[in-house]
Amino acid sequence: MKVSARNAFKGTITAVQPGAVNAEVTLKTPGGDTLVAIITEGSVKSLGLAVGKEVVALVKAPWVMLAAGDSTLKFSARNQLHGTVSAVSKGAVNSEVKLTLPGGSHVFAVVTNDAVAELNLAVGKPASAVIKSSHIILAVPA
Amino acid sequence: MKVSARNAFKGTITAVQPGAVNAEVTLKTPGGDTLVAIITEGSVKSLGLAVGKEVVALVKAPWVMLAAGDSTLKFSARNQLHGTVSAVSKGAVNSEVKLTLPGGSHVFAVVTNDAVAELNLAVGKPASAVIKSSHIILAVPA
Amino acid sequence: MKVSARNAFKGTITAVQPGAVNAEVTLKTPGGDTLVAIITEGSVKSLGLAVGKEVVALVKAPWVMLAAGDSTLKFSARNQLHGTVSAVSKGAVNSEVKLTLPGGSHVFAVVTNDAVAELNLAVGKPASAVIKSSHIILAVPA
Repeated sequence: MKVSARNAFKGTITAVQPGAVNAEVTLKTPGGDTLVAIITEGSVKSLGLAVGKEVVALVKAPWVMLAAGDSTLKFSARNQLHGTVSAVSKGAVNSEVKLTLPGGSHVFAVVTNDAVAELNLAVGKPASAVIKSSHIILAVPA
Repeated sequence: MKVSARNAFKGTITAVQPGAVNAEVTLKTPGGDTLVAIITEGSVKSLGLAVGKEVVALVKAPWVMLAAGDSTLKFSARNQLHGTVSAVSKGAVNSEVKLTLPGGSHVFAVVTNDAVAELNLAVGKPASAVIKSSHIILAVPA
Repeated sequence: MKVSARNAFKGTITAVQPGAVNAEVTLKTPGGDTLVAIITEGSVKSLGLAVGKEVVALVKAPWVMLAAGDSTLKFSARNQLHGTVSAVSKGAVNSEVKLTLPGGSHVFAVVTNDAVAELNLAVGKPASAVIKSSHIILAVPA
């Protein structure tokens, strides 16, 4: 792949909703997860995106918000992946948290150390990765 | 709350401007600040967002840009909160900067150490938090 | 400038594509690079943005994704700047990577240390900065 984004989800496009400036692209992963990305109409055309096409959804780890397993909120973010914390790498200010999803794939989030403590994000705990659709970059083979 | 986002602003929706793909949601906080969020039309419907409804606007600290108190720029970002630096936590590459707003609430931003030095972001200095509307996630109780 | 965003590209607006909620603003830098930003219609009006106007495109370093020089992907992100790695500052979790573009300007990205290793982002190596148009804040003099 050769990109710095920690999260790369392969999938097949199931819907493209056009707009004047932006389009909403929905894709389904082999594991059954649905992801929604907002990209420009210009990119839909230049990449030739259409239903049935295979794409990769890229998300940098700092663009992922985490919600604790016992959170009682509903989010506007269209992408919410429920999993289990499988690793926490602590830095001076931020930590990288790895979630493992039921299908075996992984999601990486960079959050502050304060958040790790407050949400009790330890290995084995349930958590959700919350990703805004405008924070997903789609990629196709050149 | 149990989410990793360092910034959570409670408010009441005062306007919803629909679009083909995205909608613009405006909310007012008890402290009198106005925030604008861009979310998908799909989320407006699934969360039942409408004027008068109470929501929480969530923003991760790395999504917040800071402007020094003596900046002479106007920004396209719809959300600009003016306050005073109340804490700076330094890491190897990044620092977490805490602003206190006139109403007493706080905004957290993660910026590079270079930015802290160049903007002279020390405790007691004025600064503004600049947040793009597309970087706000809205949440409601489940 | 006095803003925390590590990346500031001066340019002249060459196109404004309106939408119901968002607008797409295209600008050209003196070095010949074209940048595309998605901002709200409200900001287009409040900043008086129009073809010919000079603006500054601001991008925080964590919003920049890097692609290795030998990446074989095409991206939906409208902004792709090809350059050479000129510095890498390593932290505990993240590194700040500086690219120098052919025209002499610079792009800063904050990526994980894992990404630096996997993409072999060493000084002198080719790499591209990939920036979503919704991650650009435009600024004009106040």
